[in-house]
Amino acid sequence: MKKVVLAYSGGLDTTFCALHLSKDLGYEVHAVIVNTGGFSKEELKTIEARANSLGIASFTILDVVQTYYQEVIKYLIFGNVLKNGTYPLSVSAERILQAKSLADYAKSIGAKAVAHGSTGAGNDQVRFDMIFQTIVPDIEIITPIRDLKLSRQEEIEYLKKHGVSMNFEKAAYSINKGIWGTSVGGKETLTSSDYLPEEAWPTQITEKEPKKVSLTFVQGELKGVNGKSFDNPVDAIQTLQEIAAPYGIGRDIHVGDTIIGIKGRVGFEAAAPLIIIKAHQLLEKHTLTKWQLFWKNQMAEFYGNYLHEGHYLDPVMRNLEAFLSSTQEFVSGDVFVRLEEKRFTLLGISSSHDLMSSKFGSYGEMNKGYTAEDVKGFTRILGNQTAIFHQVNHHD
Amino acid sequence: MKKVVLAYSGGLDTTFCALHLSKDLGYEVHAVIVNTGGFSKEELKTIEARANSLGIASFTILDVVQTYYQEVIKYLIFGNVLKNGTYPLSVSAERILQAKSLADYAKSIGAKAVAHGSTGAGNDQVRFDMIFQTIVPDIEIITPIRDLKLSRQEEIEYLKKHGVSMNFEKAAYSINKGIWGTSVGGKETLTSSDYLPEEAWPTQITEKEPKKVSLTFVQGELKGVNGKSFDNPVDAIQTLQEIAAPYGIGRDIHVGDTIIGIKGRVGFEAAAPLIIIKAHQLLEKHTLTKWQLFWKNQMAEFYGNYLHEGHYLDPVMRNLEAFLSSTQEFVSGDVFVRLEEKRFTLLGISSSHDLMSSKFGSYGEMNKGYTAEDVKGFTRILGNQTAIFHQVNHHD
Amino acid sequence: MKKVVLAYSGGLDTTFCALHLSKDLGYEVHAVIVNTGGFSKEELKTIEARANSLGIASFTILDVVQTYYQEVIKYLIFGNVLKNGTYPLSVSAERILQAKSLADYAKSIGAKAVAHGSTGAGNDQVRFDMIFQTIVPDIEIITPIRDLKLSRQEEIEYLKKHGVSMNFEKAAYSINKGIWGTSVGGKETLTSSDYLPEEAWPTQITEKEPKKVSLTFVQGELKGVNGKSFDNPVDAIQTLQEIAAPYGIGRDIHVGDTIIGIKGRVGFEAAAPLIIIKAHQLLEKHTLTKWQLFWKNQMAEFYGNYLHEGHYLDPVMRNLEAFLSSTQEFVSGDVFVRLEEKRFTLLGISSSHDLMSSKFGSYGEMNKGYTAEDVKGFTRILGNQTAIFHQVNHHD
Amino acid sequence: MKKVVLAYSGGLDTTFCALHLSKDLGYEVHAVIVNTGGFSKEELKTIEARANSLGIASFTILDVVQTYYQEVIKYLIFGNVLKNGTYPLSVSAERILQAKSLADYAKSIGAKAVAHGSTGAGNDQVRFDMIFQTIVPDIEIITPIRDLKLSRQEEIEYLKKHGVSMNFEKAAYSINKGIWGTSVGGKETLTSSDYLPEEAWPTQITEKEPKKVSLTFVQGELKGVNGKSFDNPVDAIQTLQEIAAPYGIGRDIHVGDTIIGIKGRVGFEAAAPLIIIKAHQLLEKHTLTKWQLFWKNQMAEFYGNYLHEGHYLDPVMRNLEAFLSSTQEFVSGDVFVRLEEKRFTLLGISSSHDLMSSKFGSYGEMNKGYTAEDVKGFTRILGNQTAIFHQVNHHD
Repeated sequence: MKKVVLAYSGGLDTTFCALHLSKDLGYEVHAVIVNTGGFSKEELKTIEARANSLGIASFTILDVVQTYYQEVIKYLIFGNVLKNGTYPLSVSAERILQAKSLADYAKSIGAKAVAHGSTGAGNDQVRFDMIFQTIVPDIEIITPIRDLKLSRQEEIEYLKKHGVSMNFEKAAYSINKGIWGTSVGGKETLTSSDYLPEEAWPTQITEKEPKKVSLTFVQGELKGVNGKSFDNPVDAIQTLQEIAAPYGIGRDIHVGDTIIGIKGRVGFEAAAPLIIIKAHQLLEKHTLTKWQLFWKNQMAEFYGNYLHEGHYLDPVMRNLEAFLSSTQEFVSGDVFVRLEEKRFTLLGISSSHDLMSSKFGSYGEMNKGYTAEDVKGFTRILGNQTAIFHQVNHHD
Repeated sequence: MKKVVLAYSGGLDTTFCALHLSKDLGYEVHAVIVNTGGFSKEELKTIEARANSLGIASFTILDVVQTYYQEVIKYLIFGNVLKNGTYPLSVSAERILQAKSLADYAKSIGAKAVAHGSTGAGNDQVRFDMIFQTIVPDIEIITPIRDLKLSRQEEIEYLKKHGVSMNFEKAAYSINKGIWGTSVGGKETLTSSDYLPEEAWPTQITEKEPKKVSLTFVQGELKGVNGKSFDNPVDAIQTLQEIAAPYGIGRDIHVGDTIIGIKGRVGFEAAAPLIIIKAHQLLEKHTLTKWQLFWKNQMAEFYGNYLHEGHYLDPVMRNLEAFLSSTQEFVSGDVFVRLEEKRFTLLGISSSHDLMSSKFGSYGEMNKGYTAEDVKGFTRILGNQTAIFHQVNHHD
Repeated sequence: MKKVVLAYSGGLDTTFCALHLSKDLGYEVHAVIVNTGGFSKEELKTIEARANSLGIASFTILDVVQTYYQEVIKYLIFGNVLKNGTYPLSVSAERILQAKSLADYAKSIGAKAVAHGSTGAGNDQVRFDMIFQTIVPDIEIITPIRDLKLSRQEEIEYLKKHGVSMNFEKAAYSINKGIWGTSVGGKETLTSSDYLPEEAWPTQITEKEPKKVSLTFVQGELKGVNGKSFDNPVDAIQTLQEIAAPYGIGRDIHVGDTIIGIKGRVGFEAAAPLIIIKAHQLLEKHTLTKWQLFWKNQMAEFYGNYLHEGHYLDPVMRNLEAFLSSTQEFVSGDVFVRLEEKRFTLLGISSSHDLMSSKFGSYGEMNKGYTAEDVKGFTRILGNQTAIFHQVNHHD
Repeated sequence: MKKVVLAYSGGLDTTFCALHLSKDLGYEVHAVIVNTGGFSKEELKTIEARANSLGIASFTILDVVQTYYQEVIKYLIFGNVLKNGTYPLSVSAERILQAKSLADYAKSIGAKAVAHGSTGAGNDQVRFDMIFQTIVPDIEIITPIRDLKLSRQEEIEYLKKHGVSMNFEKAAYSINKGIWGTSVGGKETLTSSDYLPEEAWPTQITEKEPKKVSLTFVQGELKGVNGKSFDNPVDAIQTLQEIAAPYGIGRDIHVGDTIIGIKGRVGFEAAAPLIIIKAHQLLEKHTLTKWQLFWKNQMAEFYGNYLHEGHYLDPVMRNLEAFLSSTQEFVSGDVFVRLEEKRFTLLGISSSHDLMSSKFGSYGEMNKGYTAEDVKGFTRILGNQTAIFHQVNHHD
């Protein structure tokens, strides 16, 4: 019997796929859930139980949080990537790792097909397919939801017919959770003008008392929170998330360009990602030269956009990562942040690599190492070309 | 007698300059104050009175707010310019216009010299000198404060000796105010780690009740606030500033690269500028294509940096402005914002140029105009080069 | 009867299409040939005669050379666009104008469909389709060659069956000619390693005697050749082409990224385009500031790539054109070129906008306007940040 | 006695400096010549003999060709750097290595000063000073020629007075030779319009017979010529130079932006550098993806400009080098070139990393791996955003 690896999430669509693949298409179904930090142990147990009730050949949990951090999140931090200045790419980044892990798994078990539950209407189908066709070009891609275009009701009936009972009620807001943020979609995000109501946010506000937090970065990676060191940045991120999430920090709505050309709007909450990126960026402003800051921005914007569009495996991404990694050599130090309800303030930094050192003069005070005459000479020559241009072209 | 045009602000340094230029250097002093929106009528009257007590030849107020908007601010909005993602260039932008206005004025009265009160320690000297040497290359530039390196106390004594009495007490925080933001410097901003205390902020918080505001943009320019239309964007900006400033919105500390190579830190409050830029950017996310968004960012970052460094007269700036203006053709519509204490939320937009129109399919729902098969073909070819690359270079 | 506009070239494929559209699909066929400067009057007459023998409803020649220049070529010159440093986009640029002209024509006669003879294997299908679906989204696109996948022999038999006789011999090299260059494809260009033989080049070398030519640019446009003025740059281009082509100048082979992800190789000869671009670029090196040169390159590279891929109608292209046009204000003057067999040498320029004027100092001689002390101060401050960086991070 | 390290070249200016530093300023003079591949053993012997006749403390030859290649030239090849599309930065690149080597040497012998013979009119003073002030910030920089502003005649008389006899005749053309090219300056390069006469070129043409050469690149580095392997790319470069230089290949005149704001013009001949860069670029066009090619160009242009201006020690340069190195992983293969008088032709390449492989379809032939329907779907979605834009904004 031909093996298929199914990207399984426990929801209606992938439950339908599991049955359809085995009952209708005759596959040996190997359901795989790729955890990028969004599932608790309890949730995984529930999902596993349901999966096993579907008569599949195997159920596997791939915990890829570490790989996700090492292969994607790390670079999003190095690049301070917020798509269009807003969105930490919570879902986009996650899909890459999920697709990659599924492809590798399919290869390892000698599967003849991979299946995913994407519809024909979003970004995910493109990300999954593109990564599959690169890593496992000889394996068939099956997308029952996209191809059959069944209504929710039709899927439910199919499940009932096969004796599967689950809570078929649709949630008012669809949620996707991972370590780099949680997305929220609902009727408001289908409009251009409406904001999500308070109750739509997965993390409700339970903390309002201002609190100071210190974050320790070592070569661009978060390695400490409030003086506690972490070998593993993933632990540091999760620690910060626990502290900051109850403030309702990092909520926003992003509207962006989907891969398929339409504009899409998505709510998200991402307390730790937002704080980390902004804190990291501040530390860079103190430790990098102006052209490092400039080029990092130019390239990171492309990196983020191109990742969002599923092009993670284009070798240019490895080249950009080499650049970004190289910039982090001295991005080490502490950043001080104040958390408050729905916002945070960057208070300042402390770093032995701080280029703003009073040793070299303070801004607004007369500087050591050069004189007023030096600045006059500097200015005369700095503006020389423009002055020549105006004399040549704008003389009276 | 040789005429000198003095950039006069009414403070200790330029008061000293006025006397020094006439008493010691024998110039006919024409004091000029360039108002970029930071001085009230009362303040100007006080300044004028003092100036006239110094025995100068003339005192002139150049009100350049309109020009400032038309020649600089407009493009900062078009480009969503926030230096290093933070600072609206409040002071940097202002200095450009001041220098330009002074140079033109000096030319118009046939002055032989221009004088400014910059020290040898900051950005302003470079901006002033560079613009003077381009617009009025044959006019001498005199900078008594930079050249004489007098202490505050020495200046005060000089003034007293010449019978000038003013409040000689130094403020704890130095403030620079203009229509595009107010900067705040003090002992905290000389460190990397300390934040400004509440009392340092020029605008104290007097409003905490959340309030919705709607902003109307026409081709990228703010032309309406809460349904009220303004022919003149300057009036719209000031109206918004009055509404938003009491919330303490737009406060932050920026650390950046000075023109002279050291890092400098500056506090600022800029309620209207921050809200306008973020609202404008959101409207663009709905109305521009993805590559318009991308290239606008890349170029606007350079535009902002280069303006900051005083290179406004390099013709490349006109070229970048032509690009930015061209992108604004359809950036028209309303943006809805909620103001709260020290923060604001972008709620959504409404625009007849919105590219996120349900006419063309909603994200996550099956789209009109193309099929699942189309997306499959799209993905196959979109990922073709990367797939080939991996087959060529990573085959087993 | 439903009208179809057929992009007609007179070759086997479009001759087949004409018959197929009327005989098999029942369309009223309006054949249109869009001349972008590649067809002589005699060739057009021959094509017209054949077309009229096919029983079509109408035959129209759209001479778009002027529009082609005004809407595309002009910007390729402003941007010095050579794809990957090599190819003037001879064919890519032409297709854009052809598609645009056909779409406008189809609209004007109320056609229900447009047809083109592209195969499923190249760039042209994408360019044509993409422009049609934007300008005439409600009109059907018919591509018989791509859809029917007939062999050459099958097409010939179909034609013979319908009584059409033409020279059915296939040329050893396929040629595409337009005012911005002629492409050459053959068995060598299907390999990565082989060069085209001498006889493959459409223009054989008949001139070897070195000759000087002077080119006069006015705001970036070629307006004079050897002292003769042309109101119309198209005439200037054609005049230069007549002089330079017999030298075998501008021959090369380009390998590039097709829109569909594979690499493709194409020979071309483009004497006038190459000389104009290189001469224009030299004039810019004398008349633009360094950052104008830098940003022009960065943006023009994207402009060229994106045009190549058929995205001409994305509004970002208009924005980039606004930028490019703005840079040309002072790009006026004469460029002196020596033509020799298969190469040319840029001898120098003369321009009243030349920024290399001895008035401002000659390189290597002591300069007017600044002193040795100025340069020392300049250098001290220019290198300040890097010096600080090394003191902070590399002290022993 | 205080030690000074003098950058010695054997010419009039540095001979004057040697005497002046010891006789007038009382320094212990350590003359150092840094060989970047431009001096033959005979020339070095002559220079050494003269130096030793000047009563200096020591004379040292630093042969830095290997370091020069490893730290600079390699990246210029990786980035295909030709300033403004023309100049391989022959002199600019060399100065960096010379300054760096001198600074390290000065540190190693405990010198209190470094001296160089630059005038106040060129780029070199800035490059030397900037690198000295970064690497040896506590060491004094002495520039007698710049400071004393002596005429050639005054220097000669000073030398004669001190009993130094040398050939004081000024050459008609000043030459600077190194492994990455030879610059030529003369009366023509002081104008914008005149070309160098045949006799001005250091390498006269002695070979006109066309010859094929094959170049073997391994990860971007030249490791073979005509089938002969070289461990050391420096040897490969020199081998190619010997073959190609007699053809007069790689001659041109560059006009560019000096660091001090004026435009400068310089002739150069650089046969091997030009051939290597163009051959390497062609190999990249076959082996890199389109976005690798794009971003390499964008960054390499900045890299070249910034190197030219002496900013080699800014850490952003290390970051860009990390990017460039990363792109070269698969840039391996052979490039075939035909040499002819004053020109060369790139014939083609052969590489196991060639992405233009007939396995994936040939351009213009129906491709494997996707169908006509795929391309239609691809195009529909690729053009979706632009089509939407036009429907929203340009509907009738």
